[in-house]
Amino acid sequence: MRLSRYFLPVLKETPKEAEIVSHRLMLRAGMIKQEASGLYAWLPLGYKVLRKVQDIIEQEQNRAGAIELLMPTLQSADLWRESGRYDDYGKEMLRIEDRHGRDLLYGPTNEEMITNIFRSHVKSYKDLPLNLYHIQWKFRDEIRPRFGTMRSREFLMKDAYSFDLDKEAAVKSYHRMFVAYLRTYKRMGLTAIPMRAETGPIGGDLSHEFIVLADTGESGVFCDRDLLEKPIPAADIDYDGDLSEIVDDWTSLYAATEDMIEMDKFEADVPEDRRIAARGIEVGQVFYFGEKYSEPMGAKVLNDEGKEVAVHMGSYGIGLTRVVPAIIEACHDEDGIIWPVSVAPFELGLINLKTSDDASVETCQKLYSELKNAGIDVLYDDRDMGAGGKFATADLIGLPFQMIVGPRGLKNGEVEIKDRKTGERSNVSIDTAVEHIRAIIEPLRLDKI
Amino acid sequence: MRLSRYFLPVLKETPKEAEIVSHRLMLRAGMIKQEASGLYAWLPLGYKVLRKVQDIIEQEQNRAGAIELLMPTLQSADLWRESGRYDDYGKEMLRIEDRHGRDLLYGPTNEEMITNIFRSHVKSYKDLPLNLYHIQWKFRDEIRPRFGTMRSREFLMKDAYSFDLDKEAAVKSYHRMFVAYLRTYKRMGLTAIPMRAETGPIGGDLSHEFIVLADTGESGVFCDRDLLEKPIPAADIDYDGDLSEIVDDWTSLYAATEDMIEMDKFEADVPEDRRIAARGIEVGQVFYFGEKYSEPMGAKVLNDEGKEVAVHMGSYGIGLTRVVPAIIEACHDEDGIIWPVSVAPFELGLINLKTSDDASVETCQKLYSELKNAGIDVLYDDRDMGAGGKFATADLIGLPFQMIVGPRGLKNGEVEIKDRKTGERSNVSIDTAVEHIRAIIEPLRLDKI
Repeated sequence: MRLSRYFLPVLKETPKEAEIVSHRLMLRAGMIKQEASGLYAWLPLGYKVLRKVQDIIEQEQNRAGAIELLMPTLQSADLWRESGRYDDYGKEMLRIEDRHGRDLLYGPTNEEMITNIFRSHVKSYKDLPLNLYHIQWKFRDEIRPRFGTMRSREFLMKDAYSFDLDKEAAVKSYHRMFVAYLRTYKRMGLTAIPMRAETGPIGGDLSHEFIVLADTGESGVFCDRDLLEKPIPAADIDYDGDLSEIVDDWTSLYAATEDMIEMDKFEADVPEDRRIAARGIEVGQVFYFGEKYSEPMGAKVLNDEGKEVAVHMGSYGIGLTRVVPAIIEACHDEDGIIWPVSVAPFELGLINLKTSDDASVETCQKLYSELKNAGIDVLYDDRDMGAGGKFATADLIGLPFQMIVGPRGLKNGEVEIKDRKTGERSNVSIDTAVEHIRAIIEPLRLDKI
Repeated sequence: MRLSRYFLPVLKETPKEAEIVSHRLMLRAGMIKQEASGLYAWLPLGYKVLRKVQDIIEQEQNRAGAIELLMPTLQSADLWRESGRYDDYGKEMLRIEDRHGRDLLYGPTNEEMITNIFRSHVKSYKDLPLNLYHIQWKFRDEIRPRFGTMRSREFLMKDAYSFDLDKEAAVKSYHRMFVAYLRTYKRMGLTAIPMRAETGPIGGDLSHEFIVLADTGESGVFCDRDLLEKPIPAADIDYDGDLSEIVDDWTSLYAATEDMIEMDKFEADVPEDRRIAARGIEVGQVFYFGEKYSEPMGAKVLNDEGKEVAVHMGSYGIGLTRVVPAIIEACHDEDGIIWPVSVAPFELGLINLKTSDDASVETCQKLYSELKNAGIDVLYDDRDMGAGGKFATADLIGLPFQMIVGPRGLKNGEVEIKDRKTGERSNVSIDTAVEHIRAIIEPLRLDKI
């Protein structure tokens, strides 16, 4: 993409309304624009990140055997009356009346609707296990939306729902999502730690939150430092096999949010030098809640003895519009964002230092075309402006690498490559520059791990 | 995908509520499920088609220089008060009050919001032309939703918005979208004819509807038969160049909806043997409406003389949730759907006729794995049931090709390949079957046209 033809409205001033760094940087980098309280438009740069996050989630959900569909944003209130949650949900539920006076609501979650789809079509244990997921906009009418898309009212969530014949099978489904989540966050460049969590309005008796450590996190967390270094399961893991060993291994090390912490146990289990007490951002949560919805809503199948039984369910959420700022909270410095390659809006910024110099323009055009052919996602800063502004933009929007082209380097047949994270700069011959950067970027995509 | 692990709830009975064939087939093929009046869930098979349609639209919008972003589904009523459309829009607009009593609405279209984004960030003619688009759920509270997703209340639309300094430049932007639309529909396997159209509530003085001929179409259309055979512009067309010749060529042949028809002119312009009077389905519409929104909302830029001028705008819509049934209306027979390869949920059905036969199972597993490696999107019917049911499902869901494996063919070292559209069957050696079908499918993807 040529920057002169792109829509990248970066801001020079730091917006006053933004309290946390990710909100400030998303506004400054032209990623989002607030449309109303808790409602955001995702501008092109931000939307590109959101889609890369979505791609990773879909790949890992599919790998774990979950099947994608899409439910509507609006739901009939009647469904929620069946489960009893219509009255329970309170003012966070956005209630709507249509032209015929029928009660609708903007879905804050989809347990009821997916249970209805399930009970309409599935009648036999032979069709289990089943895990259906979608990625759809949801709404919670928070009394005080804040922190940008970290806590917005309209938000994009991946929610998966598993259906099994009994608790034992349901726990296996839970393990599949647990492992898929470890892989998902890792691929986004995040270190997310599963912690035992309360189940809240979803219900159930088994739940983990996946937490990213960050100073601006909304909750206090306590965990064993060894969790930060734990290797994640590889891409070829057998999701049909027994995953309990992996889950046990992860959950054997102490980790809990402040709601669940037992300080005695934390201190007994974790040697002092491995104790982490920090703040964290919740980027996903998994639940097993058994028959909570299947029983009242009559989601039953015939088991192998021909007896009707309510299915055991779980649900598994990842807030995409929250993951993006969480990545920024974990990956930034004073100059701006530092994207992990796998979710970067562009992998490389190609910077022409002097647009009035014919040789620079010509070299940039050639490199731009070669980089695209090499499969590099490149943003070419071809704007007619000074080098300082170009460097500032590149650092602010946080592209992982910059390839800098100017008359001085060209005299030696070289371009400069800058690593945004380390700040390291190196000169590379023009002829090998594309292959050089490709070899650096490719493993960082983490699409093969 | 293995069918035994998929979620494909096909129906044996023809649903009584469905009046048109696409609605019947989408329900029977397990593509959609109605959740409330005019609200549908897209089940896995349907959602896969919707995503392929989305991919094609995005590729062609990007190729034409449009830039993708994403605006929220809910909008502040204040924006619509600025343009004056809040009161104009009537009961089709779903009006919502949040917990603080603020007026929101579920966006039926986004002229106001995109104009607001534009005016907040763009100040100079140097940043033009600009075309921003998004693909987002919208809502129109139709008094009588019907025909399934063809006329649903919650619907998915691609809407692009162009911004230019003057009318001449705006018409160029209009031409770019006109050409992109020709390519988009062609790639979906549709013959869509641009017809002069009324502008309705969007406004403006230049508009074309893109119409697919189908007996169940909601409007009468009149056109020159030669339009059906016209070649579309190739992928390497220069969108920066002058496209008026192409647009003139297409619009020189008579085509009009019944709202716009001048029968005298139709009969004078079109020789009798080329006159088509038929019914059609609108699958997209493009508008040029000048300063209708930019003037009242103050979307102005400085021109090259430093004078502030209101920008000229256009908007360009494609209803994705309407395109899918439109394709089915155009592509089906008495047994079910016949997908064009480019939008088919799977390109090939691999059918194991006898799951109790070890050789059949083994051959299918091998072919399944080879087909996936060859990049074929394959649905493997490994269910433990009779051949008749498998054939019926394959025909109903309309996969373009079937590869049929059974003991009889295996004795000769052969599998059978069936073309869903023509019904032709041919025997192919097991060893060359994958390469054989790949060579057939690849050009039909239309991704290189």
